[in-house]
Amino acid sequence: MRKDPITGRWVIIATGRAKRPSDFIRQPVTLSKPAACPFDYGNEAKTPPEILAYRNSGGRDEPGWRVRVVPNKFPALGIEGELNRQGDGMYDKMNAIGAHEVIVETPDHAATLGEMPERQIEEVLWAFKERVNDLKKDRRFRHMVLFRNHGAAAGASLEHPHSQLIALPVVPSSVKAEVDGAQRYFEQKERCIFCDIVRQESAAGARLVTETDRFLVIQPYAPRFPFETWILPKGHGSHFEDADAPTLQNLAWILRTTVKKLEKVLERPAYNLIVHTAPVQEAPLDYYHWRVTIVPTLTKAAGFEWGTDFYINPTPPEESAKFLREAGLE
Amino acid sequence: MRKDPITGRWVIIATGRAKRPSDFIRQPVTLSKPAACPFDYGNEAKTPPEILAYRNSGGRDEPGWRVRVVPNKFPALGIEGELNRQGDGMYDKMNAIGAHEVIVETPDHAATLGEMPERQIEEVLWAFKERVNDLKKDRRFRHMVLFRNHGAAAGASLEHPHSQLIALPVVPSSVKAEVDGAQRYFEQKERCIFCDIVRQESAAGARLVTETDRFLVIQPYAPRFPFETWILPKGHGSHFEDADAPTLQNLAWILRTTVKKLEKVLERPAYNLIVHTAPVQEAPLDYYHWRVTIVPTLTKAAGFEWGTDFYINPTPPEESAKFLREAGLE
Repeated sequence: MRKDPITGRWVIIATGRAKRPSDFIRQPVTLSKPAACPFDYGNEAKTPPEILAYRNSGGRDEPGWRVRVVPNKFPALGIEGELNRQGDGMYDKMNAIGAHEVIVETPDHAATLGEMPERQIEEVLWAFKERVNDLKKDRRFRHMVLFRNHGAAAGASLEHPHSQLIALPVVPSSVKAEVDGAQRYFEQKERCIFCDIVRQESAAGARLVTETDRFLVIQPYAPRFPFETWILPKGHGSHFEDADAPTLQNLAWILRTTVKKLEKVLERPAYNLIVHTAPVQEAPLDYYHWRVTIVPTLTKAAGFEWGTDFYINPTPPEESAKFLREAGLE
Repeated sequence: MRKDPITGRWVIIATGRAKRPSDFIRQPVTLSKPAACPFDYGNEAKTPPEILAYRNSGGRDEPGWRVRVVPNKFPALGIEGELNRQGDGMYDKMNAIGAHEVIVETPDHAATLGEMPERQIEEVLWAFKERVNDLKKDRRFRHMVLFRNHGAAAGASLEHPHSQLIALPVVPSSVKAEVDGAQRYFEQKERCIFCDIVRQESAAGARLVTETDRFLVIQPYAPRFPFETWILPKGHGSHFEDADAPTLQNLAWILRTTVKKLEKVLERPAYNLIVHTAPVQEAPLDYYHWRVTIVPTLTKAAGFEWGTDFYINPTPPEESAKFLREAGLE
């Protein structure tokens, strides 16, 4: 059993009969190009009007864009109105005010993150940064969730490459738990826990997948899921949206390479990607450090897990790191 | 948006286009009786030797039992050895010492909780109680997770009716969050938060499914999942294993009725059932209150949810409560 140093969550890591990539029931994500994808060129009228686009040609809501950001057609939260916080007997409620946007990453319906040109991924990251910086001006929004579901098994309802951004009027409890855990560590050690992880993992190497001058890709010490992957910036920074141009450029390369490795070792799995970043109204924090995590969909959480937040992981991170390190890319 | 009063977790509850039972993709759990189920009569040798059995006839590991408890053949934790807590650089680890037992609930392979005789369910609950009380003598064990996965979609790998008990050497983080949240409420109000919920829900009625002299079945105020169901004892008690005979008898009736209602409204869904109870080495707590929760498998958590512990629930609990209340049972 290993303890996640940030949240204090214990996980059971299988030893002995560890699962190898071929032991998982794998369902490669395949394309079934639909007749009319709302994110393809020419179908711009099928989405709400665009919020942002990087274009080669064309006007607003016309073809010619490279990256296009639109409101989610079925948003989980509404952008208009007051939060109107109120009691309800012993309970508390408020209006679900927030933003829910879709970042269409490319006009190419069949592109994948592992095959997109690096420059394309870099532009997607710039769109992330630009949208967060715009939305954070609205002081009702406390946290931004940037995520990407790839494949139906990972919850993607549209196959055209896209990410999502949700601006929330509250800080989710798991984000609060991470930030609080990192703060406690800082109070004790006067060092950022993530910077310590970067140093230890780079030196140890057993859980290391890739290292560049700006990033470390690791399998974390106490992962909840097999092949759970963290992409950690080596330089300290609490907010993703403050990352500079060379960092985003290197992140694009790292994302592409990492997804390629996962696709090679696990046969094009479905996956979820999340940008973990500090709550957006906070000033830069000494004790928190943004990162990207990718979790391939290989296991199904059952009653035990959701009831207790206690996970059994059948693959030690040292094993998965080895498979990913050894996945040579052409 | 509504706030869970115990943990402080916010959830988005859909209004307007709320999902009705028929809107979910339902996959009724069906039986595909295998040739040789290890939990059927005559196959007792296919499991490890039994720990406990209630019998009509037969000797140890022979047919004739009504309820049978055996060690899990592929346990997540081992019962032998020392915890051996130690550091690993900046990290912490220990041996995965614990118990993992299977409660075979009936010799009838095709029985379901909604159709089993009440007396049978009561005996299963007695087996739960007896096993927890036995295992808690081992002071290495801090928490007991009692759960039941029904149907492959809910993670059940064997279809023969069974529950599981896992004894852990740590208190899982979500249990700690609940207990701490309840304690904070008690410090402020000098009342148990669950007792307050019982009073408010019984008086309000909008989220009430069933009420007996000993239990309240409700759809909670801020459920993470559609048709998430809580079975709350009306009398205060922090530990399930301290429940007395009339309570377990009534709980058996309530469980049967509740599962029957869920099966009627949702067409025999897969589900997870969990007993939430206080950490086992604690003396009785004024501020915590045990309960049973049932979550039918209707939605799939995607990237957004696991990354943030922030949930969007498409069905208001007032709606699901109405469907369950109106599900007349013959």
